[in-house]
Amino acid sequence: MSAPLVIRNATILTVNAALDIVEGDVLIDRGRIAAVGAIDAPPHARVIDAAGDYLIPGFVQTHVHLCQTLFRGYADDLALLDWLKTRIWPMEAAHTPSSLRAAARLAAADLLAGGTTTVLTMETVHDTDAVFDALAPMGLRAIVGKCMMDADDAVPRRLLEETQASIDESLALAKHWRDAANGRLQAAFAPRFAVSCSRELLEAVGSLSREHRLLVHSHASENRDEVALVHERTGRRNIQYFADVGLAASHVCLAHCVWVDEAEQALLAERDVKVLHCPGSNLKLASGIAPVTALRARGVNVSLGADGAACNNRLDMFQEMRLAATLQAVREGPGRLTARDAFVMATREGARALGLDDEIGSIEAGKKADVVIVRRQGAHLAPDVDPYASLVYAAGPADVRTVIVDGVPLVDEGGATSWDTREIVDDARREARALANRAGL
Amino acid sequence: MSAPLVIRNATILTVNAALDIVEGDVLIDRGRIAAVGAIDAPPHARVIDAAGDYLIPGFVQTHVHLCQTLFRGYADDLALLDWLKTRIWPMEAAHTPSSLRAAARLAAADLLAGGTTTVLTMETVHDTDAVFDALAPMGLRAIVGKCMMDADDAVPRRLLEETQASIDESLALAKHWRDAANGRLQAAFAPRFAVSCSRELLEAVGSLSREHRLLVHSHASENRDEVALVHERTGRRNIQYFADVGLAASHVCLAHCVWVDEAEQALLAERDVKVLHCPGSNLKLASGIAPVTALRARGVNVSLGADGAACNNRLDMFQEMRLAATLQAVREGPGRLTARDAFVMATREGARALGLDDEIGSIEAGKKADVVIVRRQGAHLAPDVDPYASLVYAAGPADVRTVIVDGVPLVDEGGATSWDTREIVDDARREARALANRAGL
Repeated sequence: MSAPLVIRNATILTVNAALDIVEGDVLIDRGRIAAVGAIDAPPHARVIDAAGDYLIPGFVQTHVHLCQTLFRGYADDLALLDWLKTRIWPMEAAHTPSSLRAAARLAAADLLAGGTTTVLTMETVHDTDAVFDALAPMGLRAIVGKCMMDADDAVPRRLLEETQASIDESLALAKHWRDAANGRLQAAFAPRFAVSCSRELLEAVGSLSREHRLLVHSHASENRDEVALVHERTGRRNIQYFADVGLAASHVCLAHCVWVDEAEQALLAERDVKVLHCPGSNLKLASGIAPVTALRARGVNVSLGADGAACNNRLDMFQEMRLAATLQAVREGPGRLTARDAFVMATREGARALGLDDEIGSIEAGKKADVVIVRRQGAHLAPDVDPYASLVYAAGPADVRTVIVDGVPLVDEGGATSWDTREIVDDARREARALANRAGL
Repeated sequence: MSAPLVIRNATILTVNAALDIVEGDVLIDRGRIAAVGAIDAPPHARVIDAAGDYLIPGFVQTHVHLCQTLFRGYADDLALLDWLKTRIWPMEAAHTPSSLRAAARLAAADLLAGGTTTVLTMETVHDTDAVFDALAPMGLRAIVGKCMMDADDAVPRRLLEETQASIDESLALAKHWRDAANGRLQAAFAPRFAVSCSRELLEAVGSLSREHRLLVHSHASENRDEVALVHERTGRRNIQYFADVGLAASHVCLAHCVWVDEAEQALLAERDVKVLHCPGSNLKLASGIAPVTALRARGVNVSLGADGAACNNRLDMFQEMRLAATLQAVREGPGRLTARDAFVMATREGARALGLDDEIGSIEAGKKADVVIVRRQGAHLAPDVDPYASLVYAAGPADVRTVIVDGVPLVDEGGATSWDTREIVDDARREARALANRAGL
């Protein structure tokens, strides 16, 4: 581990329980936050002068697909099921370890540069080791799920698995990558969605995830046609069906939940299922506006994610925070989800969704040092009178100045410290072209 | 005028009638586009190597309020009528020439840096000369309206005018600033909205705007309570009332039109009234999602604007393009308003709304040289396979590299050439604090 690091003279949005905003310094030592407030820098400490800029917890995006980052711009202006069948599945089927590596590196470079330090990601069916391998040196904190699909006749052959093989591969990944990269990498179960998975697979994931203490990451109730399809096949609403198979529990993270009725909302709350809200993706795929205000009023933990670059097309948490707040304004009324609420969802609530709230999500002594400095000089922020309003309604990823994960500066003054973004972009372009050719697009 | 300028090696989104995308160069001479294609640089020409970056027409934002830029962050999480009464009107009433100058300069610096080269702006009731004075040296192209309000008892006294005085001041501004700053500045009539204006005032604006060939810039049907109030007072739907008073014509530009019924939509189309769509503001003020697909299907010209920083809080055309497309996806279905449609609305349709389509809005020989270079290197754009998708769904203001208005580079490689942004920001902060104190906030 490197020398202690002091960040001086910051406006610190701690996102602690009291949501304290502190003018002062943060001491980082051995990858953790050692103190917050007025700090005497230890000898040999490295000092970063924040010069009054904001210091915030790194963003936690709880629903992304790193592997889809190469598909950005190939899959626009379509609705969910068409988008899956005509673009995403053929392209996922065409992935190789080399293209997966390119996608993961591109995504990590983009996410980190924009202040996201942790993700929960669903990858594709095969070659998930390539994603872990690519992420380890980048420094992003990630819980990675190999996508599970054993029951969908609309899926390309290469994506369709045998039930037991899907489970075995998921467990092998979990064992191999447990606490890898100083604990930054972990595996999760990732059954794609009810439409693509057999009941047998979902029940097995329900019980094995408890036994092995692994998160479950899936999609549910994103789109009306999907909800109808699940009902047609199972006779149940989507969330009720998930409860039937043992997947309504506090370690289950469900993306979207746009079309959940009152009974399903009550079930999500009662079982502490985590809802992963993706407002940018929900608009662009024409899915709808999720009942986030109602879910939060029931006590459901709702966190935020950009979803994949194939449907967003940004991986930008500033955009997602803004949309989370303003879409609830138009759905439920102004002030029903404030800038401060959105900021908490993007940080602390994200950490809680992943069971990492003792480790990340706020700036408090003892937590891991995943923190971000955001510049306040831009004309687009002035006069900058309310930190939450500035960050949620006006700031963007280009305002991110410094990004630290596990105490290590990965981005500083806008540049990456340990990768060459140009090289990553060039590699991504080459790999995307070749992949699109293989997929016949 | 300066030496000829050649922009080399660009991917040029011309936005001409055929929407040609040209790989090549643009020659700019005496403030106008002299040629598009493969150019032999004339001797002594300045050359900018675009290195494959996008060259696009400068964005035309058809609805903004520069004077509200100092209010950013003071007026969040409220709906329209409360927002006006408790924040915007008290703050507008507290404006001085000095604070108006600070607001206009801040807005121009922000807009230009983000690729917006032309605006239609509604300022406050008084001291509009200060806005023109501030804009002239900044280089932004602007049609500026002094806000007219002669009939609203909820308005602070300083904003309430005598009908004739309001008209006289508007005409005096139009005369004084006609074709100012090489034609970049013009005045317009700007009656605030039906709620704040007497019938006498609106009728006078209807006839005088024809006589003096001036645009009319107003708000209509933004919010359900506003529509109800207009109906209560006039017995008419808002657009029908505007038609009654002579304000349904091709030189009338109406912001919002969120709540327009079938008959009003038909009227807007039949009279070629210009609709100024502000999706970011409409979400944040909880106004709704405008029927843009239906309006465009009827042939209505719909252009885009950020509205004011007090309600957006960004002045970012990239965000507005993206929201225009994705909100119609969720309202009407995916692909109903494509990335390309949104880009045309942000450029050529904006120019047409302002009656400037012979001069700006596309990159064609003979037009004024209002053009913008957008970088393509960012990880957030890769693999960058569709220019419209990249610009509308993935790019942001920080990707703007060079901004040229009237042939003059005002922003180059991210920096302003003729103003000091830091000084403008510091001045804006000071003026905003003093203004908020005067307004009792």
